[in-house]
Amino acid sequence: MKLLSYTRNGKPSWGALEGNDRIVDLGHVAPTLRDALGQGGLGAIRESLAAADRGAALRLADVRLLPVIPNPEKIVCIGLNYEAHRLEAKRAETKFPTLFPRWPTSQTAHGAAIPLPTESEQLDFEGEIALVIGKGGRRIAKEDAWSHIAGYAPYNDASIRDWQYHTTQWGAGKNFDGTGAFGPWMVTRDEIKDGQRLELVTRLNGEEVQRGNTDQLIFSIPVLINYISTVMTLRPGDVIVTGTPSGVGVKREPQLFMKAGDRIEVEVSGLGRLENTVAHERTP
Amino acid sequence: MKLLSYTRNGKPSWGALEGNDRIVDLGHVAPTLRDALGQGGLGAIRESLAAADRGAALRLADVRLLPVIPNPEKIVCIGLNYEAHRLEAKRAETKFPTLFPRWPTSQTAHGAAIPLPTESEQLDFEGEIALVIGKGGRRIAKEDAWSHIAGYAPYNDASIRDWQYHTTQWGAGKNFDGTGAFGPWMVTRDEIKDGQRLELVTRLNGEEVQRGNTDQLIFSIPVLINYISTVMTLRPGDVIVTGTPSGVGVKREPQLFMKAGDRIEVEVSGLGRLENTVAHERTP
Repeated sequence: MKLLSYTRNGKPSWGALEGNDRIVDLGHVAPTLRDALGQGGLGAIRESLAAADRGAALRLADVRLLPVIPNPEKIVCIGLNYEAHRLEAKRAETKFPTLFPRWPTSQTAHGAAIPLPTESEQLDFEGEIALVIGKGGRRIAKEDAWSHIAGYAPYNDASIRDWQYHTTQWGAGKNFDGTGAFGPWMVTRDEIKDGQRLELVTRLNGEEVQRGNTDQLIFSIPVLINYISTVMTLRPGDVIVTGTPSGVGVKREPQLFMKAGDRIEVEVSGLGRLENTVAHERTP
Repeated sequence: MKLLSYTRNGKPSWGALEGNDRIVDLGHVAPTLRDALGQGGLGAIRESLAAADRGAALRLADVRLLPVIPNPEKIVCIGLNYEAHRLEAKRAETKFPTLFPRWPTSQTAHGAAIPLPTESEQLDFEGEIALVIGKGGRRIAKEDAWSHIAGYAPYNDASIRDWQYHTTQWGAGKNFDGTGAFGPWMVTRDEIKDGQRLELVTRLNGEEVQRGNTDQLIFSIPVLINYISTVMTLRPGDVIVTGTPSGVGVKREPQLFMKAGDRIEVEVSGLGRLENTVAHERTP
């Protein structure tokens, strides 16, 4: 299944995408996709989808997409998880994954403009693969990790670099409103073989700027789930953003930052293509 | 008002403490204190409290306390915000506040046992003052900052030090389940004069281990609210944990960590005393 969140006539809901353009609304199952994952999980979603009224299907143009999970309890991002990126960032090897936060206000949807805030000109791209937790747990063994995943989606962990480096901790630069693009939808785990290589390409105005493959991850998906869940209980709808390959703008010579009017895409094999523009923020 | 969250007979609710031992349940106003802050704010809570049925009042012993806000969208913690602590931590001065995350699973209540996980013997205390956002906003001016605060509470940002230093980013060591104690209640802003000096004392088994005062904050509360809200939209129920004074166990010689059976208190003038024990975790 492809599951997605959206508003229709200003009302938030969620559903499944069938074919290229038909959305079956599942808002009657639970108010949000996160709630549905927590209540009956993918099994119940699948049954509700099978029973749903196809006559009422929407088209993509009828809705305004939201981030795949607009309201996760946790968005745990992983830094420095591709060797070539660790080297370009001139960071030491670590025995453990590097965790940093996004909070939900930092997310945005496929198709939205990523705002270039008035405070910075250093808006950078980071193409990544996000996974959504379907079954919660603590101290999840590596060999059980895959069974806790509901699905996968492209993610753009766009970063305000000067604010990221205000202090040793990256939280500020990773949390400007609307910089974390998540979508267009998540593809459920049954359609992606466990451990299948996923190829990720980031393109800026159509030109490739990053390429990576999950077989290059320093800390594999089972290692990440094991490590994070040793620390904290994972819950349905939690999001883990698995890290970016090399090629980020801040480490290039000359540096390459995004500017108003740019188009940025993160495409992942088997998952789809996340597209966003960049626009000057209308300051609230 | 003193506002607090709890479960009664397994059902989550919240209310106001009157006197030393009488809770007026306000669960009919909104399902959670966070929701109530978002819906009508403190004004509506005050009106509901005035109209509430005093005959139905509970006693503290009738409920099991929860963290003051059990389900915040954001818990933004501040590092290195007292000069003496910055010096003991041997960290460089910064022009900006240091932000790091807690996620809600890391929180616990007044009176609960903070779990000493099987993975570490380095459980350390950090007495702090938390503030709860009442009115949301973005790019909140320093001079308007106080008016966005709903109230204050003691917080123990207890940390698993070896995991905190696994990498450059502190997220892992700050997020073990049940290590962030928050309570017993929040005292609303009308009872604490804006800018009033709040004195914080941490005691381990009755012995003072930390003392600080908000007039020593490197980044004052208005500066914190301005900086954080420049990055992200603050929303009602968001929690900002303002930093710890010097005296933490990891920087002592010899180092001092908490062990099973210990009793740890964070007392703040005008707010109350947060007490917790430490116990070996029952591993799930």
